[in-house]
Amino acid sequence: MTNVLVKVAYDGTCFFGYQLQQGLRTVQGALQHALIRLHGKKVEFHAAGRTDTRVHALGQYINIQTDMLLKDRFHYALNAYLPPDVRAMSSREVSPSFHARYSAVKRCYQYRCYVGTEMPPQYRNFSYLLPFMGDLERMNQDASALLGLHDFRYFATAPLQRMDTSRTIFHAAFVSEPPFLLFTISANGFLRRMVRCIVGTLLHRERLRSKKKYNIPSMKQLLQKPQHNLIGPTIEPQALSLMEVEFDE
Amino acid sequence: MTNVLVKVAYDGTCFFGYQLQQGLRTVQGALQHALIRLHGKKVEFHAAGRTDTRVHALGQYINIQTDMLLKDRFHYALNAYLPPDVRAMSSREVSPSFHARYSAVKRCYQYRCYVGTEMPPQYRNFSYLLPFMGDLERMNQDASALLGLHDFRYFATAPLQRMDTSRTIFHAAFVSEPPFLLFTISANGFLRRMVRCIVGTLLHRERLRSKKKYNIPSMKQLLQKPQHNLIGPTIEPQALSLMEVEFDE
Repeated sequence: MTNVLVKVAYDGTCFFGYQLQQGLRTVQGALQHALIRLHGKKVEFHAAGRTDTRVHALGQYINIQTDMLLKDRFHYALNAYLPPDVRAMSSREVSPSFHARYSAVKRCYQYRCYVGTEMPPQYRNFSYLLPFMGDLERMNQDASALLGLHDFRYFATAPLQRMDTSRTIFHAAFVSEPPFLLFTISANGFLRRMVRCIVGTLLHRERLRSKKKYNIPSMKQLLQKPQHNLIGPTIEPQALSLMEVEFDE
Repeated sequence: MTNVLVKVAYDGTCFFGYQLQQGLRTVQGALQHALIRLHGKKVEFHAAGRTDTRVHALGQYINIQTDMLLKDRFHYALNAYLPPDVRAMSSREVSPSFHARYSAVKRCYQYRCYVGTEMPPQYRNFSYLLPFMGDLERMNQDASALLGLHDFRYFATAPLQRMDTSRTIFHAAFVSEPPFLLFTISANGFLRRMVRCIVGTLLHRERLRSKKKYNIPSMKQLLQKPQHNLIGPTIEPQALSLMEVEFDE
């Protein structure tokens, strides 16, 4: 048996997210189907992370326990069985103990805003229409408060009571690339809908300030003492992409 | 009557090109349908240029003879009746004699290549998969030979014998923006499939040279003495976008 790590990209538009769901089209389902067709039997595989409905990936990773001796050509064989909205980008052999989920130490996401009043249709499945630009420096001041270890319980959808909801943020910043405003964030891991909730919060805060409402707690205060009316909303999914995952091997 | 100029963007993926064709979904058909619904009757309108099946536009323009007094808010009203893959981006009043086709003096197109062996699916309707990068300087030397006035009869699909097939190229160059290679070209006008034929020719020449076949005529010679085996192929349409049109008012 060989343990092969495959980099996977997908257009999430027509998927009900990554995770397998009975009767719904999912990325995991498409991968499973292709792997079964390639091997003639069920094989074990694990992904670095789950993505929600309509969320994309340029750098998702799965590791597969395979008896095929394809190694760094594995992705070509897999592509023969994948639908056009999922592509295996590259592949390489990894150690038997490597696990795409547990060996991952850093995940990077990007949220893409189109700044304007009307959005060209070619971006509609990959961007969020942001009708105002905001003050980039002020937004990045907010974003920098996210760096380090914080409890993100209130920035996630329904975490379990006993679950560890602390995550370490390594990077969080907006970059202006007209007509786009890009938000990039990387962390050791993310809770369910956490990225979209963080982006929604940061944009909501800027919207308030652009309306001259300055008497809101700082982002640092909000992280320490969460206030529901200042957190969220969980913003639209189609503008979000899993960009890259880093592993500890 | 007011003459209104509307900037239009569309995702060409699900259209059989711009021009009206009986029984097929076209951009002109979608615009006509929306304009009829908005006005309650047929209105006259003209586009700056035609685009082929699957070709996109970020900066197409149409001028409309309207009795509505919407002026620079016209595009909001039009969007209410347009399908999601066509958007009116802005609008303004122009002089009664203005004609989107005849007043246009410069049209700019972009052709987007994704350099790699596998393409992330989110780009598949908007890019051409180019498996080799090529020598950027050498490619731009070829492209610069296109500048100025040339007869592009052999770089077009079936032009009429008596038709004027000369066009003036203002700009033609490749720019590398990894993972993309972008080719931008602007001219006073283009013949049918001319941009795709030019890009196909430039990439084909580079492919030959990357295989150490250097004994081909220069691009300048090829424009003067066209050779069928060195022109084209007409490359895939989905990577092409009409970016902008400039007018003489």
